[in-house]
Amino acid sequence: MQYAEPIDKLIKAFSRLPGIGEKTAARLALYILNAKGEYVEELASSLLSVKAKVSLCSVCMSFSDIDPCAICSDVSRDVLTVCVVSDYKDMVALEGMGGYRGLYHVLHGSMAPLKGIGPDEIRLKELVNRVESKAVKEVILATGFDSEGEATALYTARLLKPYNVKTTRIASGVPVGSFVEYMDGATLVRAMQGRKDVAG
Amino acid sequence: MQYAEPIDKLIKAFSRLPGIGEKTAARLALYILNAKGEYVEELASSLLSVKAKVSLCSVCMSFSDIDPCAICSDVSRDVLTVCVVSDYKDMVALEGMGGYRGLYHVLHGSMAPLKGIGPDEIRLKELVNRVESKAVKEVILATGFDSEGEATALYTARLLKPYNVKTTRIASGVPVGSFVEYMDGATLVRAMQGRKDVAG
Repeated sequence: MQYAEPIDKLIKAFSRLPGIGEKTAARLALYILNAKGEYVEELASSLLSVKAKVSLCSVCMSFSDIDPCAICSDVSRDVLTVCVVSDYKDMVALEGMGGYRGLYHVLHGSMAPLKGIGPDEIRLKELVNRVESKAVKEVILATGFDSEGEATALYTARLLKPYNVKTTRIASGVPVGSFVEYMDGATLVRAMQGRKDVAG
Repeated sequence: MQYAEPIDKLIKAFSRLPGIGEKTAARLALYILNAKGEYVEELASSLLSVKAKVSLCSVCMSFSDIDPCAICSDVSRDVLTVCVVSDYKDMVALEGMGGYRGLYHVLHGSMAPLKGIGPDEIRLKELVNRVESKAVKEVILATGFDSEGEATALYTARLLKPYNVKTTRIASGVPVGSFVEYMDGATLVRAMQGRKDVAG
């Protein structure tokens, strides 16, 4: 059926969101039709205010409504340690674990030559500037363990070699709660290579 | 992690949509952060314009940006037949099947005494007024076959008894593509009761 034009436009707009197909988009639009006006206005204004108020922190490149962001301006954190992530989402996940007290650097992507994403397309220059101009003792590379994340980690480590900074990579191995029998060979090789002494 | 306040507000607003949990809401909000400004503005304005421009058709109570709606003002349709549905979604589904050329009436709910929804809480008065004031030959009751939909159909049929109008109920039985062995007993009883002669 031909929906009224404003409904149709909303369905199309919803269906551009990730993981939202046309059926779900229609369901959401019909929900909006029946929803309270205040809620719809709140959703619309939240969308606009995220774009208006949130920008990149000038220090760590994460998303924030203040500059520097809450983490970069938190004096209780360890400013000598910088954890490099591909995406803001990764930073959110690492903060979620709770134990890390250093700072971050968000690259906003991984190097992917086949997709035309080279070192200049991600926030690497900002990281080098940071290491150059500020006292940083350790850079922890926490990009993913897919080929793009690995390449990015390797490239970043080489880029930072001229500077007096320790470069580490987070460990790769069998995830907690997983069974060895279900692991792929590449992960098991990594887990073997990364083995550690056990206090007996 | 504590998201920046505008991001947090957007996640909360997204998570109030049906079927969107907090994780999905966060994913959508992070998508919005990275999305193009034009898209976000379009989504926000579509939300507001649906609420501003779409209202109930004064004839059939369906959602429309014009009054009467496109279906009610389509002169090629059979104005003597009115199909009663609980929800706008049901009307969309019936229009989707393609063959029906009559008009609709959207009740916006089913009678549910336990939830405090009586005949006055749904658009039944508007249906009676319509049957009273306009030439209507047949009212097809297409509410659902759950207990609330059934009660609504029965109540509506009784309500229309004083008027010179034929009242019919859509058929209940085994859905096309389904196997008899998997059907529940209530459906099979209905299917038996609704059996028809087969031309041999």
